[in-house]
Amino acid sequence: MKIAIVGAGSWGTAMSKVLANSGHEVLLWVRENDLLDQLKESKRSYYIDIILPEGILFTGDIQEAISFSNLIFNAVPVQFIRRIFEGLDLRGKTVVNLSKGIELSSLKRPSELFKEFGAFRCVTLSGPSYADEVAREVPTTVVSAAERIEDARFVRDIFKTGYFRVYSNNDQVGVEVSGALKNVIAIAAGIIDGMGGWYNTKASLITRAIVEFIRLGNCLGAKPETFGGLAGIGDLIVTCTGKYSRNRAVGEELAKGKDINEILSKRKTVAEGVPTSKAVHELAKVFNIELPISSEVYKVIFEGKSPWQAVEELMSRSQKDEINWLQNR
Amino acid sequence: MKIAIVGAGSWGTAMSKVLANSGHEVLLWVRENDLLDQLKESKRSYYIDIILPEGILFTGDIQEAISFSNLIFNAVPVQFIRRIFEGLDLRGKTVVNLSKGIELSSLKRPSELFKEFGAFRCVTLSGPSYADEVAREVPTTVVSAAERIEDARFVRDIFKTGYFRVYSNNDQVGVEVSGALKNVIAIAAGIIDGMGGWYNTKASLITRAIVEFIRLGNCLGAKPETFGGLAGIGDLIVTCTGKYSRNRAVGEELAKGKDINEILSKRKTVAEGVPTSKAVHELAKVFNIELPISSEVYKVIFEGKSPWQAVEELMSRSQKDEINWLQNR
Repeated sequence: MKIAIVGAGSWGTAMSKVLANSGHEVLLWVRENDLLDQLKESKRSYYIDIILPEGILFTGDIQEAISFSNLIFNAVPVQFIRRIFEGLDLRGKTVVNLSKGIELSSLKRPSELFKEFGAFRCVTLSGPSYADEVAREVPTTVVSAAERIEDARFVRDIFKTGYFRVYSNNDQVGVEVSGALKNVIAIAAGIIDGMGGWYNTKASLITRAIVEFIRLGNCLGAKPETFGGLAGIGDLIVTCTGKYSRNRAVGEELAKGKDINEILSKRKTVAEGVPTSKAVHELAKVFNIELPISSEVYKVIFEGKSPWQAVEELMSRSQKDEINWLQNR
Repeated sequence: MKIAIVGAGSWGTAMSKVLANSGHEVLLWVRENDLLDQLKESKRSYYIDIILPEGILFTGDIQEAISFSNLIFNAVPVQFIRRIFEGLDLRGKTVVNLSKGIELSSLKRPSELFKEFGAFRCVTLSGPSYADEVAREVPTTVVSAAERIEDARFVRDIFKTGYFRVYSNNDQVGVEVSGALKNVIAIAAGIIDGMGGWYNTKASLITRAIVEFIRLGNCLGAKPETFGGLAGIGDLIVTCTGKYSRNRAVGEELAKGKDINEILSKRKTVAEGVPTSKAVHELAKVFNIELPISSEVYKVIFEGKSPWQAVEELMSRSQKDEINWLQNR
């Protein structure tokens, strides 16, 4: 099958390998000219340390990418989707979205954006999947989610490698809510890491974060069970505990007293949790719900609140009966 | 309040500090004579790197400990509870159990053992709580679980520090099943760490492990929601991802091809997941249920199965619809 991938960051690049390994003809759209030259010449990227397999094509022309196939994988970060895709002719296109978050200007999820831009359908691929590990063929499982389970299964069956396994799921909203919130929670987890690498505190925070997934998901029409799956708790665990998480790394630096602008200016890659924490803050206001951990992350980033004070307030609730997210949903 | 703690390993020692910090008069029973001398002299333990606060008493006499108070904390590992407590007069005693696992000879949970030995009541304290971190006053949350919520609340209210926070819960079975299984799953997580520190694979494994908690818990009368709480997913996360986990460390060594007897002979501390994996294997046979991850851990430890093969088999299920534990319960 011919497949175009839009975006050659670490995830788009790793995905080009998985799809090539699955026997497909892949064209990768690369935004940066220097990276495009490097990929054409050496099949190496500065985002991820692998040599890509033979047969993957590269282009800097977005029109060429869109015309290449009716199957388009999007690996452009959510805050840039509009800039890249608006105005392109997506009629008849199946978009498989890899990016996670909520667009700040519209408060839309990625699949809503692709619908706005006229795509035939959008399927979301999500789960615990560091691009670096996928590129090294580490056994990985994710979910393919769409409103119609047939669409999810269609994308699931595109993958034919032993190391990248896909399960189909019909709760696209839940999967997208998970993908957005987990990056916000990872910033909180990173703050705890920066304060002292406290495993007990972080595990408590991750456990309690699921309440926020369910609460926000409930307002948007998600199914609570999605949050117990690979795209929910699975991706949350990897993002909050793994060494490759950019959002967790931002939290670590915040805990050391650095300013968010200083932190972001030094990063080559996008930390999606930062704009998404603001989008989530807006959504919480719209729906009038309490999301205590997400709210503290927002306050630390956008209102200059001390990370230490934020964690202290989160941890100092009164001692009462445990009411967890499964009872509380 | 007067409180006796039986067992001066890392958790019993850390607990003596928490209880002393909560204003109680604490007597710690120490099995090893050299450790008893050292504690009396310097208030330092070789299990945990802290100096204990003033006022904690130490004894090597188990009768003295039992007579000291009607409130006894047990920090003796589950496989040694019978040896220490059988034959003691526990009438009128409230036992707060800190140990996790299932006794191999009887397939009983700790609270069942203390009932067998005549205790008035037994309350279980569990959750993501590395002793080292608790001793360093890292913010920690746990649950106090009993069949009767009043008993759980009684123990909850014993704690009066800012750093060790306790929530009450009336599903003691669920909390004890979690405490047992999480150490078995941690061995599997350690195997993955030893194979290459694969975050994607480990997160997938942790997510899928919860199915086994619910399945075994269901046979024993646990409530599924407990597994979504601090003693369930919370403790599972810390045990599978934290650096202090003994069971995870055993798994890492298994992945490097070492024999289980060689691994255990070099350890000063108990890796509860090893005997518990056998007890869980027996329970799965009794109830005729499938616990795939626990079963592979059992086979690696007791049947010499290759850890690599075990992980490969766990990861190579067919690609189908995602059915997770919340849908499946």
